[in-house]
Amino acid sequence: MSPSTKRDFPVDQIRRFLEPGPIVLVSSHWRGRSNIMTMGWHMIMAFEPSLIGCYIWDANHSYGMIRKSGECVINIPTLDMAETVVGIGNTSGADIDKFKEFGLTAEAAEKVGAPLIGECYANFECKVADDGLLDRYGVFVLEVVKAHVAKTPKYPKTIHYRGEGVFMVSGRNVSFRDRFKPQNL
Amino acid sequence: MSPSTKRDFPVDQIRRFLEPGPIVLVSSHWRGRSNIMTMGWHMIMAFEPSLIGCYIWDANHSYGMIRKSGECVINIPTLDMAETVVGIGNTSGADIDKFKEFGLTAEAAEKVGAPLIGECYANFECKVADDGLLDRYGVFVLEVVKAHVAKTPKYPKTIHYRGEGVFMVSGRNVSFRDRFKPQNL
Repeated sequence: MSPSTKRDFPVDQIRRFLEPGPIVLVSSHWRGRSNIMTMGWHMIMAFEPSLIGCYIWDANHSYGMIRKSGECVINIPTLDMAETVVGIGNTSGADIDKFKEFGLTAEAAEKVGAPLIGECYANFECKVADDGLLDRYGVFVLEVVKAHVAKTPKYPKTIHYRGEGVFMVSGRNVSFRDRFKPQNL
Repeated sequence: MSPSTKRDFPVDQIRRFLEPGPIVLVSSHWRGRSNIMTMGWHMIMAFEPSLIGCYIWDANHSYGMIRKSGECVINIPTLDMAETVVGIGNTSGADIDKFKEFGLTAEAAEKVGAPLIGECYANFECKVADDGLLDRYGVFVLEVVKAHVAKTPKYPKTIHYRGEGVFMVSGRNVSFRDRFKPQNL
């Protein structure tokens, strides 16, 4: 997916892509090296500012890179990348260069040093807004400072981790728009 | 769904149902009244103990009930309940009794005062483990102290909020079990 296929996206709207609960790829950069990890434990915490809470185990190679650099990118992969996602989740950046190993394109971000993963449907550039929950809970509070989202499709075919090596693929949509109060949409 | 169709479920495994990101219903009880709200901003924070982080807006009627009682139940609804979920999300417990209004069955929990919603696929009884993030972030840290899950199906047809009144319905599964390191399953 080339950069020209993406558009700037309002950071206060990125909850549209994270609230359904997809597995994401987190890219980071520190002292000349980049890394990627998979992440399933994340939530929206606010949309103005655009805050994401996420748990990262401190044994992950990415943990130190994100904590020290204070930055990362949350990338949303789609079903066609599922094997790559599994490969990334079962290797360590301490041993290999994951961009090279998995043939992924590292693109320059605008506001952070961590690279965007070109092949992903969306890329959210994040700065660590609060590291005060790390020692107790391993939870980073991230602020999305820039978002890039593919122009099409409107609804990506994401994968959602069920455990035991099984992913749920996002299915059909049902709309109840006419039953919502406008302020609740 | 009668209670006999559910089984006790290990609390350290409930991430199998929350990590895919479904909309959940949160039931609470305080001073003789029960309430229900919808919630989409939640994440697993740990599995031993079984911790869930969730954001609840303090303008929600449920916020005070959960904060004061220190308890709630997280219930997982399925596609057949989608209209009820939307109705619950667009009304306030300050005005109506949602169990009565939506014809839902309040069942007694084992370890908390908040009721289980009988019709839901799963019910996780929770105690507030940490209210220290509420004033800054509106995030409750909950500990799941008892879990009830339907005996079948193994994979419920959950709904996931995409915004603008649209829900994604959980789709097919793909397994990569043979590509996982055992400790990563």
